[in-house]
Amino acid sequence: MSSLPTPEPTSAAARPRVLSGMRPTGALHLGHYHGALKNWVRLQSTHDCFFFVADWHALTTQYQDRQNRNSIERNVYDMVVDWLAAGIDPEKATLFIQSRMPEHAELFTLLAMSTPTSWLERIPSYKDAVEKQRASSTPGDGATYGFLGYPLLQAADILIYKAGFVPVGEDQTAHVEVTREVARRFNRIYSPDAPILPEPQELLTETARLPGLDGQKMSKSYNNSVAMRDAPEVVDEKIRTMPTDPQRVRRSDAGEPSRCPVWPLHQLYCDESTRTWAAEGCRSASIGCLDCKKPLIEAIQKEQAPWRERANEYLANPKQVQWIVEVGTERARAVARKTLREVRTAMGLAY
Amino acid sequence: MSSLPTPEPTSAAARPRVLSGMRPTGALHLGHYHGALKNWVRLQSTHDCFFFVADWHALTTQYQDRQNRNSIERNVYDMVVDWLAAGIDPEKATLFIQSRMPEHAELFTLLAMSTPTSWLERIPSYKDAVEKQRASSTPGDGATYGFLGYPLLQAADILIYKAGFVPVGEDQTAHVEVTREVARRFNRIYSPDAPILPEPQELLTETARLPGLDGQKMSKSYNNSVAMRDAPEVVDEKIRTMPTDPQRVRRSDAGEPSRCPVWPLHQLYCDESTRTWAAEGCRSASIGCLDCKKPLIEAIQKEQAPWRERANEYLANPKQVQWIVEVGTERARAVARKTLREVRTAMGLAY
Ligand code: SF4
Ligand code: SF4
Repeated sequence: MSSLPTPEPTSAAARPRVLSGMRPTGALHLGHYHGALKNWVRLQSTHDCFFFVADWHALTTQYQDRQNRNSIERNVYDMVVDWLAAGIDPEKATLFIQSRMPEHAELFTLLAMSTPTSWLERIPSYKDAVEKQRASSTPGDGATYGFLGYPLLQAADILIYKAGFVPVGEDQTAHVEVTREVARRFNRIYSPDAPILPEPQELLTETARLPGLDGQKMSKSYNNSVAMRDAPEVVDEKIRTMPTDPQRVRRSDAGEPSRCPVWPLHQLYCDESTRTWAAEGCRSASIGCLDCKKPLIEAIQKEQAPWRERANEYLANPKQVQWIVEVGTERARAVARKTLREVRTAMGLAY
Repeated sequence: MSSLPTPEPTSAAARPRVLSGMRPTGALHLGHYHGALKNWVRLQSTHDCFFFVADWHALTTQYQDRQNRNSIERNVYDMVVDWLAAGIDPEKATLFIQSRMPEHAELFTLLAMSTPTSWLERIPSYKDAVEKQRASSTPGDGATYGFLGYPLLQAADILIYKAGFVPVGEDQTAHVEVTREVARRFNRIYSPDAPILPEPQELLTETARLPGLDGQKMSKSYNNSVAMRDAPEVVDEKIRTMPTDPQRVRRSDAGEPSRCPVWPLHQLYCDESTRTWAAEGCRSASIGCLDCKKPLIEAIQKEQAPWRERANEYLANPKQVQWIVEVGTERARAVARKTLREVRTAMGLAY
């Protein structure tokens, strides 16, 4: 336990700081890995990374979901285990839980004082949700003050660590944009001569959107996902039973990969020669779908093997996971408190 | 310093809890005393009182006022000295500063998740402010997310102490009403079998609205106020130069008390026989205005004498005031933390 060293402050300070969070959805699937986590693993070597469990954010949209609530603790630790399994190194990155940081709530409250409501109302995700609400049977229930403030809470998450970069998908650039506006306005009003809150930049990174087993977006709630820690035989079963080109009914029918939900997985997991073999075999009906799926199954299982190994080590020692989060939370708190002190002083609240 | 005992927990628990706050406006005037503070002094004997400096609330409307910001620390301590001078007893009541309680911000953030924005938009004070904004030259600047959330922050202030009662003026009943709604909804969603947040009641109390030296509302910014700690000669000067019945131009003109701004002060400060003497003397021109003002000046000076005495003791020992606030803040924090633990557990965030 005590063998967990904190990273060299100098080396951390020399790397640009990145902040990113994930809602606690429990055990992660391959879509999470390829869409975000793989990128986090890459970033931790080049950046001073702060990765957090966004459990408050989960409440902005799922606050009434009782089941979600009861399993949230389980979800938090399952997710952190998957982060570690994927190769997130707690000696390189700082891992913590949002709800353990009342400092975020305090900065959120303070930033609220100078942030026009109109900035939040015009964010596309809010406008969409309000539209949906209007059309729904229980209008108004989801349009909470917390949901409206979601981008401002996110701004507080980012600004409290003075993060220079935020990895985002294309649909989230509006959120980073509003964070910059919030920071700019705060600086202008409270500290025009020496800006306190730096404006973060989007970090547009190469990530892959992985389709689920049915060709739709991979999602636990669609029941079409392969979990990062699914056992090899489960992966085998799931891929073998995946639907394929609907026009390839019999083994002897020729198929067309571009019509097949298995194909995008091939693109991601198999090398070019395997893909050429599969495409030609499919179009000529010289291979069957199970033949085609075999190298894919093996590739996924091979990717998962080190994850499972690392996860098993952590699962055998749950206290270590808690300890990692504990250390990360205190490391994050030290940074957050420093920023808050500067913010309070600028606002005239430090006494 | 160490001679400040905390109140008997049993006796405090037996008294119903009251919460009330004041924005840090600096040295208080007679209007503050008669409008609120006098009532606080009464309440501390019968209730378990939590009185706080609402410095975050001051920011919801005055966030751009640089001068206000620079003097806010001074204002906080000046105001607390006036509370103590008026007879607030730190052994009976708990005195603290809102901005020292990140717990309020956390509960505010958590309550935001389940509070419909529409509840806040329909509060009269918000609607009025938005109307004013529309008509102003800098539209939108004051309609901040924090200002919209002001009643919710107030709800958090109240609910975090499970206060049963909130002393309010007539124009604030909407705020206590929304606090009840917020509590009810929280309980229903997160803890339907065992409500966590009690619904507070308004404590409608007898308070006097004191007019200023010019007959308008007494306010420091109108420059028409008598400070609680104004020196006797200053009070003398201020009352002597007060305008009187505009139709009583000469000493020999008969006057009419109901037209005179001095008269409401007589109502509050002088006994019936003095008032009868003044009214008759005025109407018959048998007394001059300075004669009429004399017993009033004396009554105010007499009221102020013990305040000044107590204030001088505290001003000679500013560390003691800080210490009182320190002890109160920690006492409040213990209660706040307990409530937050219950709230987090109900929301599934305790891990
Ligand atoms: S052979 Fe491969 S690509 Fe073709 S339909 Fe079957 S699974 Fe899909
Ligand atoms: S005598 Fe008294 S009540 Fe009458 S006008 Fe003068 S100050 Fe006012």
